[in-house]
Amino acid sequence: MLSKNQIKLITSLKQKKYRQQHGFFVVEGIKTINELLQSYFELHALYTTETFNIDAKREVLISKTDLKRISFLTTPNTALAIFKIPESKPIYEKGLIVALDALRDPGNLGTIIRLCDWFGIKDLVCSHETVDCFNPKVIQASMGSISRVNISYVNLEKFLKDQTIPVFGAFMTGENVYQKILSENGVLVMGNEANGISKNIETIITEKISIPRFGEVQATESLNVATATAVLLSEFRRGS
Amino acid sequence: MLSKNQIKLITSLKQKKYRQQHGFFVVEGIKTINELLQSYFELHALYTTETFNIDAKREVLISKTDLKRISFLTTPNTALAIFKIPESKPIYEKGLIVALDALRDPGNLGTIIRLCDWFGIKDLVCSHETVDCFNPKVIQASMGSISRVNISYVNLEKFLKDQTIPVFGAFMTGENVYQKILSENGVLVMGNEANGISKNIETIITEKISIPRFGEVQATESLNVATATAVLLSEFRRGS
Repeated sequence: MLSKNQIKLITSLKQKKYRQQHGFFVVEGIKTINELLQSYFELHALYTTETFNIDAKREVLISKTDLKRISFLTTPNTALAIFKIPESKPIYEKGLIVALDALRDPGNLGTIIRLCDWFGIKDLVCSHETVDCFNPKVIQASMGSISRVNISYVNLEKFLKDQTIPVFGAFMTGENVYQKILSENGVLVMGNEANGISKNIETIITEKISIPRFGEVQATESLNVATATAVLLSEFRRGS
Repeated sequence: MLSKNQIKLITSLKQKKYRQQHGFFVVEGIKTINELLQSYFELHALYTTETFNIDAKREVLISKTDLKRISFLTTPNTALAIFKIPESKPIYEKGLIVALDALRDPGNLGTIIRLCDWFGIKDLVCSHETVDCFNPKVIQASMGSISRVNISYVNLEKFLKDQTIPVFGAFMTGENVYQKILSENGVLVMGNEANGISKNIETIITEKISIPRFGEVQATESLNVATATAVLLSEFRRGS
């Protein structure tokens, strides 16, 4: 059985202000929960219809009806967990860093976290205007990768100005990325879904790059930011 | 004012069987509607809160409240259009074709249509188990690209068996795509989100390819199918 207070806490965690107030975030789905259980993330409570055989104090067996009541999904999984939001770690500042300038869509952020994990990017740096990485839809799309990528929210303008390594930015009119020699150290900045990289950040970019379009003149005017990130990270990693 | 019959027709188009029965699909958002108005797609009706200055017979000015009633979106745009589902065109069978084996997520299909458009892929061939490309969420994610990519639903096994060009497939254990010479003619098969390429299709694949993982051993076990498609299409197009 779930108490009213438990339900109230869980549903409040849909909103960033309550996540920050309580220091918790919600994870749904056995696979992602198991991945986070094996990471440095600390479990606060696990509400599940089937036992995970973990520390019994943290596990609460609930009915499917109760799960439906607390789940953020239209089709709930079999478990919902609350984890503590970990303290942010310092930025490593070696190798390639991905930076996001006011990314708004949680699905895109989740996909980019998963891409960073795949391509071995240790640090993902987000402007304060970027969607919160503990948003349930971000967690859903990142599929456990959130425990393996260090995500920091910073004043992006200041962060980039402080860098001595090249700062790459994805622009529609940048240099053809396929013909460009890409350095091993650098920051790759990706812009907002509708407006791209903002004016004040643009002035700090040292290398404007672009993915050439192969379609007809009438073709789509831009790639989705997550798929563009996929192509660019692949280019950085593949070697020339 | 909207009639009860109009509302009933529009809301029925959420479902594939009614789209097929009526031969219509729904498009929301001024930008995508405008793109489709300029394509060979035929408009059936346009419900809008502000005039588009097009053929008046097809345009119905409605209130925001009415738009909210018919919209499939949580936050409705300012217009909703009904277009006729066009007759499918024959498959061109030259250059690179993308084939989807039971792709289920409409967002992924929409993103892949947009990628095909960007990378100049003329033909997208889908197994009958793949989500319907006129699903409103697919249209939403494809952002007008649906008018520039020829999408066919086929018996994928038969289609691939009939090919004389190389059939590439994305597998976790395929050859490193960065080290592989990719032909200009071919079919690139992408698999289902959860299960990858099915067994019966796997036997027809002549070239298994893979995107290497650069993260730690514990890294994410797979890329999202849309981002994997982005990386692979980029590899086919970039030249060696």
